[in-house]
Amino acid sequence: MPKILIKEREHKIEVPILLTTVSGKIRVKNRSILNEYGTPVATRRDGFVLSNYVEWQIGYDVVKKEVEKLAESSLPDTEFIGANGKIKALYELSEYIWYFFKWGVISRKDLGNVINYLNSIQNNDLIDNNSELQIDRSHPVARNINGFDFEYTQVKYPLLIHKFNGYEIVTEIKITEKQYAVGTQPMLYLCFPITELKAETNLIGRTAKTREIAHFEITKNNIKVFLEMLKMFGTLSVNHKHDILQIINTILA
Amino acid sequence: MPKILIKEREHKIEVPILLTTVSGKIRVKNRSILNEYGTPVATRRDGFVLSNYVEWQIGYDVVKKEVEKLAESSLPDTEFIGANGKIKALYELSEYIWYFFKWGVISRKDLGNVINYLNSIQNNDLIDNNSELQIDRSHPVARNINGFDFEYTQVKYPLLIHKFNGYEIVTEIKITEKQYAVGTQPMLYLCFPITELKAETNLIGRTAKTREIAHFEITKNNIKVFLEMLKMFGTLSVNHKHDILQIINTILA
Repeated sequence: MPKILIKEREHKIEVPILLTTVSGKIRVKNRSILNEYGTPVATRRDGFVLSNYVEWQIGYDVVKKEVEKLAESSLPDTEFIGANGKIKALYELSEYIWYFFKWGVISRKDLGNVINYLNSIQNNDLIDNNSELQIDRSHPVARNINGFDFEYTQVKYPLLIHKFNGYEIVTEIKITEKQYAVGTQPMLYLCFPITELKAETNLIGRTAKTREIAHFEITKNNIKVFLEMLKMFGTLSVNHKHDILQIINTILA
Repeated sequence: MPKILIKEREHKIEVPILLTTVSGKIRVKNRSILNEYGTPVATRRDGFVLSNYVEWQIGYDVVKKEVEKLAESSLPDTEFIGANGKIKALYELSEYIWYFFKWGVISRKDLGNVINYLNSIQNNDLIDNNSELQIDRSHPVARNINGFDFEYTQVKYPLLIHKFNGYEIVTEIKITEKQYAVGTQPMLYLCFPITELKAETNLIGRTAKTREIAHFEITKNNIKVFLEMLKMFGTLSVNHKHDILQIINTILA
């Protein structure tokens, strides 16, 4: 991905969004109703429609040893120790907050409030420990399908959707199994309609050009949404909470 | 992975199972009760216990253009056209059936029965079209968690478990979203307890050696389970049905 554009004078960050990947951390998706997962859109073939949105598995850190990914951060010299013991730099979400704090749009008090909020949340109230947000399995039922005897079970995953009041931005928290351990793993996605993007020409009704990039603008008008997202990240698990507190201390230092 | 060992005289196939990968198509997992997904086991660190099992996302074909994977098939010169239009060779499940048919353990009639069975299944009775096996979403409920307002939804995935009578082998069919399109995608996994494996020394109570391999033996005593699995694969979707019928015709030719 190309680097973010930092427009210091205008207090604006432009995030490049590649419109043509169906895999990867940022994807164009489509859905008819809010409470369903969207499906990826082949933007080169099918083009853009109003029900398209951008799903972005936004990050907030990069392990410094991962040189290629570190090169994507505009703040490779920042440093904190992650909950996993690895040395990390600010990246994406934390990068944006860093700039708007330096620009005086986010205040020391705003960040202090996030610290106080996260310190007030008990570990057993964090999302991955919340007993009402566990993966659930229905009792198995015998079912014969095409002559085969099966035990039929439903495996139920919690999905949390938060709308930021007055914005076209939502976050989705999907709770799945940890891949290599027992327990649950909440993952946070940022979603917004493609109409929020700045493209060379209007996207709706046309197909994407080869490796076309549009931009999402972060300004003083929506940076508070990103600060809320940082706060929300801190509620996902003990490790997330640790990382977010370290990040805020790094920004304040 | 090392190649399978074909012991023609004994009518036996030994499938090498790498015990130390936590990712990949074959993994050692652990579960306490049948109707839950297992979690991967760090066999080098934690060692083997009786509740461990092998989960194997078994395949039945290889695209001939994928040279590296084709090299894993002992029958690279076999050929059929897949539902996706690609030229494929027999691989894994279809490979095993090919040998046991050549050895006269599986009869022409056995394979004919699978053809007749699959031809008798209507397309709208196939697993991915079955209206009772769709991904379901609960109605969203407002829920405040740690001060954030969320809409809480459960996304429910069907899981089908089939036990092969008299064997320690089960198949799991997990139904998930298609990754790049609208619709569901059933995936079939073969599971058996690690006690079914032949290892140099008994696995239970010890850790795995570096890149340790154990063997799963396919003989006339269990090949019928694999034939049933081939039949089950054919019921997953129109494309699976097409592929399995092509495979049986290739074996019979």
